[in-house]
Amino acid sequence: MATKAKIGVLGASGYTGAELVRMLLRHPRAEIALLTAERSAGKAMRDVFPQFSPYELPTLVALDGLDWASMKLDLVFCALPHATTQKVLVEVLSKAPSTKIVDLSADFRLADTTAYAKWYGHEHHAPELQKEAVYGLAEIHRRAIKQARLVANPGCYTTCAQLPLIPLIRAKAIDLDEIVIDAKSGMTGAGRAAKEAMLFSEVSEGFNAYGVGGHRHMAELDQEFSAAAGRDVVVTFTPHLVPMNRGILSTIYVRGKRGRTPEELHAILLKFYAKEPFVHVLPFGQTPQTRHVRGSNMTFIGVAADRVPGRAIVISALDNLVKGASGQAIQNMNLVLGYPEAMGIDQVALFP
Amino acid sequence: MATKAKIGVLGASGYTGAELVRMLLRHPRAEIALLTAERSAGKAMRDVFPQFSPYELPTLVALDGLDWASMKLDLVFCALPHATTQKVLVEVLSKAPSTKIVDLSADFRLADTTAYAKWYGHEHHAPELQKEAVYGLAEIHRRAIKQARLVANPGCYTTCAQLPLIPLIRAKAIDLDEIVIDAKSGMTGAGRAAKEAMLFSEVSEGFNAYGVGGHRHMAELDQEFSAAAGRDVVVTFTPHLVPMNRGILSTIYVRGKRGRTPEELHAILLKFYAKEPFVHVLPFGQTPQTRHVRGSNMTFIGVAADRVPGRAIVISALDNLVKGASGQAIQNMNLVLGYPEAMGIDQVALFP
Amino acid sequence: MATKAKIGVLGASGYTGAELVRMLLRHPRAEIALLTAERSAGKAMRDVFPQFSPYELPTLVALDGLDWASMKLDLVFCALPHATTQKVLVEVLSKAPSTKIVDLSADFRLADTTAYAKWYGHEHHAPELQKEAVYGLAEIHRRAIKQARLVANPGCYTTCAQLPLIPLIRAKAIDLDEIVIDAKSGMTGAGRAAKEAMLFSEVSEGFNAYGVGGHRHMAELDQEFSAAAGRDVVVTFTPHLVPMNRGILSTIYVRGKRGRTPEELHAILLKFYAKEPFVHVLPFGQTPQTRHVRGSNMTFIGVAADRVPGRAIVISALDNLVKGASGQAIQNMNLVLGYPEAMGIDQVALFP
Amino acid sequence: MATKAKIGVLGASGYTGAELVRMLLRHPRAEIALLTAERSAGKAMRDVFPQFSPYELPTLVALDGLDWASMKLDLVFCALPHATTQKVLVEVLSKAPSTKIVDLSADFRLADTTAYAKWYGHEHHAPELQKEAVYGLAEIHRRAIKQARLVANPGCYTTCAQLPLIPLIRAKAIDLDEIVIDAKSGMTGAGRAAKEAMLFSEVSEGFNAYGVGGHRHMAELDQEFSAAAGRDVVVTFTPHLVPMNRGILSTIYVRGKRGRTPEELHAILLKFYAKEPFVHVLPFGQTPQTRHVRGSNMTFIGVAADRVPGRAIVISALDNLVKGASGQAIQNMNLVLGYPEAMGIDQVALFP
Repeated sequence: MATKAKIGVLGASGYTGAELVRMLLRHPRAEIALLTAERSAGKAMRDVFPQFSPYELPTLVALDGLDWASMKLDLVFCALPHATTQKVLVEVLSKAPSTKIVDLSADFRLADTTAYAKWYGHEHHAPELQKEAVYGLAEIHRRAIKQARLVANPGCYTTCAQLPLIPLIRAKAIDLDEIVIDAKSGMTGAGRAAKEAMLFSEVSEGFNAYGVGGHRHMAELDQEFSAAAGRDVVVTFTPHLVPMNRGILSTIYVRGKRGRTPEELHAILLKFYAKEPFVHVLPFGQTPQTRHVRGSNMTFIGVAADRVPGRAIVISALDNLVKGASGQAIQNMNLVLGYPEAMGIDQVALFP
Repeated sequence: MATKAKIGVLGASGYTGAELVRMLLRHPRAEIALLTAERSAGKAMRDVFPQFSPYELPTLVALDGLDWASMKLDLVFCALPHATTQKVLVEVLSKAPSTKIVDLSADFRLADTTAYAKWYGHEHHAPELQKEAVYGLAEIHRRAIKQARLVANPGCYTTCAQLPLIPLIRAKAIDLDEIVIDAKSGMTGAGRAAKEAMLFSEVSEGFNAYGVGGHRHMAELDQEFSAAAGRDVVVTFTPHLVPMNRGILSTIYVRGKRGRTPEELHAILLKFYAKEPFVHVLPFGQTPQTRHVRGSNMTFIGVAADRVPGRAIVISALDNLVKGASGQAIQNMNLVLGYPEAMGIDQVALFP
Repeated sequence: MATKAKIGVLGASGYTGAELVRMLLRHPRAEIALLTAERSAGKAMRDVFPQFSPYELPTLVALDGLDWASMKLDLVFCALPHATTQKVLVEVLSKAPSTKIVDLSADFRLADTTAYAKWYGHEHHAPELQKEAVYGLAEIHRRAIKQARLVANPGCYTTCAQLPLIPLIRAKAIDLDEIVIDAKSGMTGAGRAAKEAMLFSEVSEGFNAYGVGGHRHMAELDQEFSAAAGRDVVVTFTPHLVPMNRGILSTIYVRGKRGRTPEELHAILLKFYAKEPFVHVLPFGQTPQTRHVRGSNMTFIGVAADRVPGRAIVISALDNLVKGASGQAIQNMNLVLGYPEAMGIDQVALFP
Repeated sequence: MATKAKIGVLGASGYTGAELVRMLLRHPRAEIALLTAERSAGKAMRDVFPQFSPYELPTLVALDGLDWASMKLDLVFCALPHATTQKVLVEVLSKAPSTKIVDLSADFRLADTTAYAKWYGHEHHAPELQKEAVYGLAEIHRRAIKQARLVANPGCYTTCAQLPLIPLIRAKAIDLDEIVIDAKSGMTGAGRAAKEAMLFSEVSEGFNAYGVGGHRHMAELDQEFSAAAGRDVVVTFTPHLVPMNRGILSTIYVRGKRGRTPEELHAILLKFYAKEPFVHVLPFGQTPQTRHVRGSNMTFIGVAADRVPGRAIVISALDNLVKGASGQAIQNMNLVLGYPEAMGIDQVALFP
C-alpha cells in the first residue's frame, strides 16, 4: 500500500475545514494528523461537526505552542481568517520549511502587495512569502502549481468567474470593457460566524445583492483577467445571496469581439476544457444549475446567444465549498504531492 | 356604509386567484360574487386553498354557461391562461358590456397584435378589444387607467423592470443600448401547474437561469421601453429561479448618458416616486431585498455606483404575487371604480 | 373618528416587536408612541427592519431614563428578555400605574413563583405583580383578561398545545396520563439573537429535536393543564425545529377516556370553538398545515382516529409570531382596552 | 484488478434510481450495464439528470423486449412502481434465473400475501417469488440476505423505525402497547412524480402531517415488530413532511418494561450496534439531526429520558435516499455478491 501524506488542517471548525475533513477521510493517500481550532480547542471534531461522530479524528488543538518541526507534516491546509494566515504561515515555514502549504484564505492571492494593502486595509505581513506563492487555479496554472511550496487557493466567486472567462480573454474573443458578472452564492460562502444577517429567519424566503459596486473579490479578478489580457481589465461584478447552502452561479454578459458569435465563444470553451476532469462545458444553448454540481468538484459552463446581436450570455456553476474551496484545495494538494489530480475528489454530485 | 362592488374572479384556483381573494376578503368596498375554476368546479374554495376554511366564499363554478348579464358584476378579474382569456373576455363584454375588466394574463398587454402573434405563436382572438385595452402600470399610466373598461395588468418581471427604468429612459439619462436586466424570481411566478421541474426536490437548494436569450416577457418590455424612449429599445434580460416562494429582484446594469452620475440617476427616481404610495426609493447606495416587500404591494428601488466609471447598478424588488400581479390588479380596480388607490392593499410586508 | 390609544413597544428590534409594529401600523385605534431597543437605541426602525422604510415611526430609544408618567401611554407591549421584564414592568407601573401591560415574555405566566424559580434558576423579582397578572389565553380566560392591568401573553408552543387540549381535559374526555405532544416549530421561535446554531447553513435542509425531555415551556403547560383537570397533569412534550420561518404544528397523541371515540373528541372541540374568531376546527379526519395560517391570527385544529383502537391524533397549527405571540398580544390589547376583539388582526393567511 | 459485476437499474429516472447510479459510478466492483425508464426511453441519463453530464452511461431503454438472458446481468436493482415490479421480476427471473435482485419497491416486503392484498388493494402477482424473498434490513437479517436471490429492500420510514426499535423489542425492554412513532421526512420520499401537492410553492415554508392514522408503511412495521416480539404488535405511526430534500427523523416514545430505565435502553442499543458500520448510537442524552447523515449510508440513534418517569424518547435519523433506499440497496448487493459490506457506500455525510 502506498504511503500516506501527513496532513494538517488549520481552522478545522469552519465549513471549508469540515469539507477538507470530509474528503480527506476518504482520500487514499492522506492521513489527517492535525486539526486546529482556536475557540474549540480541546473539543473533539464530533462536538463541532456531529457528522464526524462515527470517525476517529485528532482532537482539535490551538495553534499556539505547536511544534511544527517535530510534527513532520507533509502538507498543511490553511483555512484561517485573513491576516492571521500570513503570520501563521511565516511561523510554519520557518520551523518546518519543507512543509507544503495550500492556503484557502485570500492572503496570498494578490501578487501585488500594494493591491493587497488597498483592498484589505493593512500592510501585508509576509511580503517575502508572497513572492513564492502560486495562484492555485489548476486549470490555468497547473504547471506552476506542481512546483509550488505555497499555493494560494482561489476564491469561490473568482473561480466561478475565471473558468469561463480566462479562455475567452486569452483568445481575444470578447470585448474587455463590457463584461458584466452577476453572481449568486449560497449561504455557506459567508462562513460559520454567528451574525444576525446570516440567521435562517433573515435569509430564508428572500433574495438580495450585497457589496454592490465594490466587493473585495474584484482585486483577484482584476489581477487574473489583466494577466490573461495583457492589459488592465476592470469588470462589473455584483454578488447576491441565494437562500440555499451550496452553490455559485455566475451569469456573465459579454460582447463578442471582431464578429465572434456566441457559438464561436462556446467552441473556444469546449476545446479549452476538452480534457479537464473538473470543468464540463454543456452543449450550446444549455445552461447549468448549481444543484447539479452540489457536493462535487465539477464546474459546469453553458453559453447561449443573447437576442441583442453580438452579445452572449455565459453561465457557470460550481459548489462554493468544493471546487470553490476545499475540493480545489485537495486538487492542488494532489498536484503538489504528485498524486493523480482527481484522487479523492471524484465524488459525483448529490442531487436532489 | 358605502356600497360594495360585485366582483368576479375568473381562474380562482391558481396563486394569483388566491391572492385576489385574500385581499378582496378584507377590501371594504368589494364583495366576492363569483369564483370560477374549470377543473375544480363544484368544489369549495377551502378545498382548493385550505387557508380560506374559516371564510364564507362562493362555490367554484365552471365558466361554461354563466349568465354574465344577470350576474351584474361590477368588475371581473381574469386570471386565466393566455389565449383562453381573449375568448372569455369577448364573451363577458358582449353579454355584459358595462362590466369592468382587469386582466392578469398576458393577452392584452401588447398593443401590437402582430407582436402578439410572433411571441405567442397564434393570431390574437380579440383584436377589437385589444384596441381599447389600457396597459395597467398605475404609476406610469394612471390617467388612462381611470377611464378604462379593460385594463391589461402588467407582468411581474416587467413591472419590476419598468418601475426603475421608465423614469430614467424618459429623462434620457441612460444609454439605451447597454441595458442589462438580470432578474431573479421566486417559484410562485411559475404558477400552480404540476410540472416536474417545479417540484420541491427539483427546486430547493439550487439556483438556475432559464429561457436564456429569449423570454416572452421581452415583448412587453420592448413595447413600453420603446414608447418611453421614442425609439426602439432592445434590452438584455435573463430570468432566474430562486428557491423561495415570493419575490422578484432585478439587478439592472446601466450607463449614464451625457455624464449622468449614479447619484443623478438616483435623484431622478427619488423625485419621480416622491408621492407614490407603492414605490419606495431607498437612500443612495442602499439596495433592496425581496423579503422586505413580501406580502405587500410595495416596490423598493435602490441605486448604487458601479466601480466602472459612468456605470450604475439599479436594483428593484417586489412581491410577484402582489405588486407583480394581484395587488396591482386591485390597485387598478380601485382606479377604475373610483376608490382610493391604496384601499385594501396597504398591508405592511410580512418579514420574517 | 375614534380616539387612538397611545402604545409603547418595549423590545422592538426582535421578531415579536416587528410583528407588533406590522399589525399596529394598520390597527384603527392604535398609535405607536414609543419603541425601545437597547443595542439599537438611536436608530430608526427602518435600519433594523427595512420593511418599515416607507412608514413614519418613532426612533428607537433605550429604556433607561424614560419618563413613564409624562408619556401617558395607554398600553405597553413588553417583548423583553425574561427577568429583565420583571424589573422594567415594576418600574413602569410604579411611575404610571394606570398603564395597561401585555407582556410577551415568560416572566408572569407562572402564578406560582416557586415554580418560576425552579425552571428559570432565580427568584422572581416581582412577586407582588405576579399576583395580579392574568394568563392571556383569550379563548380560555377572556373574562379575566378584560379586567386585567397586566396580561401574561402565553408562549407559542403552549398556545398551540392548550387550544386543542384544554377543552378535552375540561370535558374529562381523555386519559391524563398518556398525553404525548410532539411539537414542531419554525425558526423565528428562536428569536433574532445571532447564534451559530440558528445560521441558515446550520438549519436549512435538516430537521432535529431539541431540549428533549425537559423544555422550559412545560411549566406553563403543567400549570394550565392541571388547572383544567383539577389534578396534577404531566405531559410528554418534545419540541423540534423545522427549516421554515413561521409556524408551529403540534401532533398530539391521546387516548379517549371512558370509551370516548375520536369522533366524540372532535365534536367537543367543534362545539367549544364554534363562535371563536381565531380557532377553526377542521372536519373530522382533516388535519392542518402551518402554511395555511401563516401571517394570520388563526389556529387550525384537526382530529383523526388512530388505528390503535381508543386512541386519537389531534393536530393543531398556528403562526408562532401571530397567534403564538404578537397577534394574540393585540387580541389581549383589544380585550383590555374594550375594542372589538378581532380589530386589526383579522388579516387572512398568506399562502403561498 | 477484480472483475466487475454487471448491474442493471430498472426505473433509473426516479430519485432512487439516480442515487443508485451516483454510488455505482464510484463502486469499484460494479459496472452499470443497463438503465431503464419507460417515459424517458431513448434519452441519455444526462437529459433526465444533468448531474451525470460528465459521465458515460448507457442510454435509457424501455423494459419491453429486453433480452434478459443474453444480457447476463449479475444483479438487477428494481426501482419500479409497486405491482409493476412483481410482473417484471417474474419475467426477469424466468429468463435469467441466476440474476440476483434487490427490489426497492414495496412489492416483496410483506411475507404474508394476504396482508399485501389488504394494504395494496389487489392480489399479489408473484406469490411464488414472495416465498423466496428475504427482507433486506442488513443489520437484522444479514445472514439470510447473503444467501438470497431476491432481496426486498426495506422502506425508508420503516428502516428508520426498525433500527432503534427491533433491539429493544427483542430484549423485551419496552412496553409493546404504548409505542408512538412520530416520523418526519424530506420531500424526496414522495418521489419525482409531478403532483400539485409536491410543488415547491406548496411545500416550502410549511409543515404538515399526512396519512394520519393509516399509512401503508404500517404493514411492514407490523410484520417486523411482531416477528421480533413473538406476538402481535401494533404501533401508532404518523408521518409528516418537512420542507427539505433528504432525511427522516423518527421521534419514538416508549415506556421501559419491568423497570428498564432510559439509560438501560440506551445501553442495549449501544451494545447491539457496537460493530455495525452504518448505525451509530450517540452518547446518552444526545439526539441526532438529519443534516448530519445527509448523503451518507449512516443511521444516527439517540436516547433521552422523558420527564415522565419510566418513559424514554428514542430518536433516529437517516437519509431516506441512501440508508432509506439506494445505499441500503447497495449494501444488500454487497452482501449478495460477497463484497465487503461497506464497499462504495462509505461516503461521509455532506454537511452543510
